[in-house]
Parts: sequence; C-alpha cells; structure tokens
Amino acid sequence: MKIGILGTGIVGETIGTKLVQLEQSVTMGSRTPNNEKALAWVEKTGSNAFAGTFADAAKYGEILFNCTSGAVSLEALKLAGAENMRGKILVDVANPLDFSKGMPPTLTVSNNDSLGEQIQRAYPEVKVVKALNTLTSLIMVNPQSLAGGDHDLFICGNDAEAKKTVTAILVSFGWKSEHIYDLGDITNARGTESLLPLWIRLMGKFQSPMFQWKVVR
Amino acid sequence: MKIGILGTGIVGETIGTKLVQLEQSVTMGSRTPNNEKALAWVEKTGSNAFAGTFADAAKYGEILFNCTSGAVSLEALKLAGAENMRGKILVDVANPLDFSKGMPPTLTVSNNDSLGEQIQRAYPEVKVVKALNTLTSLIMVNPQSLAGGDHDLFICGNDAEAKKTVTAILVSFGWKSEHIYDLGDITNARGTESLLPLWIRLMGKFQSPMFQWKVVR
Repeated sequence: MKIGILGTGIVGETIGTKLVQLEQSVTMGSRTPNNEKALAWVEKTGSNAFAGTFADAAKYGEILFNCTSGAVSLEALKLAGAENMRGKILVDVANPLDFSKGMPPTLTVSNNDSLGEQIQRAYPEVKVVKALNTLTSLIMVNPQSLAGGDHDLFICGNDAEAKKTVTAILVSFGWKSEHIYDLGDITNARGTESLLPLWIRLMGKFQSPMFQWKVVR
Repeated sequence: MKIGILGTGIVGETIGTKLVQLEQSVTMGSRTPNNEKALAWVEKTGSNAFAGTFADAAKYGEILFNCTSGAVSLEALKLAGAENMRGKILVDVANPLDFSKGMPPTLTVSNNDSLGEQIQRAYPEVKVVKALNTLTSLIMVNPQSLAGGDHDLFICGNDAEAKKTVTAILVSFGWKSEHIYDLGDITNARGTESLLPLWIRLMGKFQSPMFQWKVVR
C-alpha cells in the first residue's frame, strides 16, 4: 500500500519507519520538497521511503497520516490540497496543543469542538479517522513493548469502512483488536483529545512518555 | 472523625454511607434542613448519620466532601459559608458538567481553568483536594470490586498535609496507595476534570459506569 505521511517530526518518522518495515511504500511530506529531516529519513530507511512536499505525499498516499503539530495541521492540510486528499482516509494523529503560553500547554480547541472535527469539516470528502493521539509514538508502533500490550487505543470517525481499514493497520503494528475502542463518529475526538491535559501532566510527573491508558472493566 | 457531605445525590450518599460504615460520623447537607433524600438516608443509615443544611454540614465536619453537581457547586459552597469551612479540607469530587445543551454534556470550565481551581480561589482558606472525580461512586468506595483494585486514582491540591489526610481516607475505602497518583497543585484539576468528556462517551458505549482508568507503565 502507498502511504503519505504529513509531518517530519518524531511521530511521522516513527510511523513512517514502521510502515516501511511492514513493506508499505511511504512518502513523507513537509513544507518544502527538500526538508533535511525527511531526506535523512529516506537515506536511513532505504527503498520504499520517499520525501516530498505535503502535496506530493497527499497525492502519493492511498492512506494519509496527519502527523503535523496540531497547531499547524489545518495549514499543512491546505498545502496538501483538497484535490490530492479527496476520498482518501486521513488518520489524524495530531493534538491541538498550544505551547505559546508556556507549560503545560493548553488546547487550541476543546470541549464543544475538536481538531478532528475541524479537519473533517474543512475536508468533507476526506475520511478522517482520529487515532493514535493518546500515547507516545514508540508505543504506537510497538504496543507489545509496554506491559505485553495490555493497554488501550481509541478511534473514531464517520466512516465505518475507513475505521476498519485503520484498525487493520493498527493490528499490523501489533495491536490486538480487543484493545481498540471504536467510540463512534468524529465528534468523539473531543473525548480523546481531552486526554492530553492529563497525559501531559503525567508525563511531567513520570519524566517519561512511556506509559499508556487502560480502561479497566 | 466528623465529616460533612455537601450534596444528597448518589455520590454523596455512597461516600456518606461508606464513612458511617467506617465508624465516622457524617452530616449530609443540602439546600434545606429537611431534604427528603437526606432524611431517608439518615433513617436507613442509623446512628452517626445526620442531616442538615449545607451550613450545618460544613460547620459539623472536620473534613468536607463536595458532592454537589459541578454546575451548582459554587452556589452550594456559598450557602455552606466561608466561616464554616475555614481551615478545613474540602474534597472536591464534583465535575463541571453542563447538561443544558443535551448529551453528551460539555464542561462549564476547562482547559485554562477548572472547577477545583475556581473553588480554591473563592475559598483561599479552605484546603481543596480534588479527588474521586474520575470514576463512578460504587467503585470509589469499593475499589476491590473491579479487577481486584488494579486501577488508578488521581489527586491534586495545594496542601501536602491535606493530601496525606485524604489519601488515608481513600486507603480506608480500600485503595492501595500505589494506585493513587498525586499530580501536584490544584491546577492539575484541569487534567483530571478533562477525563470526563471521554469517561462519559465510554459510559455511553458500555451502557455502564462500571469501568475505571489505569495508567499502564
């Protein structure tokens, strides 16, 4: 499968590398066609790893991952281009964190709206699936590395088939489907993005992002 | 110990009953001195259970529990009276849920402030400890009833001694101290109150409030 990763940060790099290891082909997109981090990633990741602009990555991928910083996601998606994303699945991994007022960050949107919904509204022909935004990237792609995988993910989105496809990708990452809670439509991103204020405080307390949520029933 | 419970809902009743079972003396306070639910609770709970106004309960208790609905907590505390609460610990169990715009509720305050902080600012001489606001009341007072107690609580507040006292009460409820995460000062209530948007959605999905958070490390 051809995947477009939007964003060259640790999240995009980690997911992109995992997908290449799983024998997918990945183009990492950024603001410019010759972003240093993207080119270094291509260099070390080998064949099946490519770099380009946001538009290149969006055009290339059959499935897209939004791994940009939440504060600039809408701007990055504009550069990716509605035409290039039309009809495709966009896995929205971003969180609308605002670091401009110091630590801990606040959310730029919350409570009665969410970044996931903002993206879905801006691109109604894209199938937005909110996923993977509640944990650190190393655990995203290697769930078994923490407590044998005994912890949970939340996904939501308006398109049932799109969520099935994303779930299959998550299973290929090592997630067991019983640990993936489908919450319903994209408005549920209000719920999962609102884990961030506590997640960030716990990360500060533990001085480590290597922890995860589990819903005990 | 003498405890004042503010609020006659299921949370106040459940915590009040548990405290009486633990041989504490409890006055349940409400808007009026002869609230039917409070009187019925006294009737069935027996000696060491009393009813009165918010002011009666606040005056009576050495430690107070705010178990009112978050939307009316500040109003209830005004009736309880700053004089009656001065220097005491107030365990704030409430969440600032706004049901007026339909389900699921939004938060009346979030992100850059919290109900816990609003209460602390309004009553600077009260030792506010935010606790027990992230789970259903039956599990609050009987943590072992779910997964043998293998799930977590979060507390925060500005006064370290007050948090120790509250932790001791939680331990008397059956919580193991390693499952109680002290996040720091009362601003961390922004983190724990922000679990509610997801908690409510999970409750809707499960059609049951009998679940809990665990931080897997």
